[in-house]
Amino acid sequence: MAARRVTGPEIERLIQLLARLPGLGPRSARRAALQLVKKKELLLIPLAEAMATAAAKVTTCRTCGNVDTADPCFVCTDPRRDGSVIVVVEDVADLWALERAGAVDCRYHVLGGTLSALDGVGPDDLAIAGLVARAAGPEVKEIILAVNATVDGQTTAHYVTDQLAGLPLKVSRLAHGVPVGGELDYLDEGTLTAAIRSRQPF
Amino acid sequence: MAARRVTGPEIERLIQLLARLPGLGPRSARRAALQLVKKKELLLIPLAEAMATAAAKVTTCRTCGNVDTADPCFVCTDPRRDGSVIVVVEDVADLWALERAGAVDCRYHVLGGTLSALDGVGPDDLAIAGLVARAAGPEVKEIILAVNATVDGQTTAHYVTDQLAGLPLKVSRLAHGVPVGGELDYLDEGTLTAAIRSRQPF
Repeated sequence: MAARRVTGPEIERLIQLLARLPGLGPRSARRAALQLVKKKELLLIPLAEAMATAAAKVTTCRTCGNVDTADPCFVCTDPRRDGSVIVVVEDVADLWALERAGAVDCRYHVLGGTLSALDGVGPDDLAIAGLVARAAGPEVKEIILAVNATVDGQTTAHYVTDQLAGLPLKVSRLAHGVPVGGELDYLDEGTLTAAIRSRQPF
Repeated sequence: MAARRVTGPEIERLIQLLARLPGLGPRSARRAALQLVKKKELLLIPLAEAMATAAAKVTTCRTCGNVDTADPCFVCTDPRRDGSVIVVVEDVADLWALERAGAVDCRYHVLGGTLSALDGVGPDDLAIAGLVARAAGPEVKEIILAVNATVDGQTTAHYVTDQLAGLPLKVSRLAHGVPVGGELDYLDEGTLTAAIRSRQPF
């Protein structure tokens, strides 16, 4: 059966754009659009304004690659943070995750992805040169590679380590092991082996 | 651990508003917001504009309750539709679903919910008076009650039927039966009994 025009072009465009958001498919985008137009005062107008504000103000930090309303970003300008440690992450989402956890209180560097031969991502596509330049600064003492524990993530970590080899730095990586709250029965062999190898005195 | 400021207030507000959309929780709202600010030109700005346009143009049809950019809406003004049949639905989403299916080619009436003693929804909270007024029009011959097959939906259908009792109309409801593509093994007893009772010559 041919698709029929169910709503006006304005709502159809809203649905199409919403469907591009991660976590929303075509069906849930339609539900979201309907919710928006039904709650015009409460949801649609505030969200349109919040998006316009974000579009006008949000920028990428040229120092670390974080997304913020200021450049340099609030992490790079925070004087209470330990400037001697730089945590290297693949994506801004990873930076946000570490910040939410309050895991570290230092600076970050967002690579913008991982090296990937399959996807044609080479070293020049990532913010590696910028990292090496920052790492050469006199105050930097340690680089923590907080990349994902995937093949591409680990390849990238090795490449970054090679690039930093000439500098008088400690380069570390995240520990592998059992996730807090995790059950051994559900974990893969690689994680279990890593957890045994890196066992700690109790 | 105390929650830390991970991003600026503009992005936090965007995340909070996105989390109110159906289908997006706090975590996926954060992912969506990040995607938006990363794809500013491609996604954030067009979506902000589409929402502003929708907010300015979208309205509710005073005749049938549909959501459209015109009042009366495109369904009510379409001259090719059969004006002798009105399909009564609970929600605009149901109208959209029937239109997508191309199931009917007539007019609609959106009740705006169902009668519900628990939620304190009475007849005056629904567009029932408007339906009775429309049904009294000389061209109307049939009312199809396309409400959900829930207890509240069926209660509402009975109430609406009572209100329409004085008018020279055919009042019908959707057929109960096995969903197309459905497997008997997974269906409840009520549906199976209804499907047997309403069996058709093969």
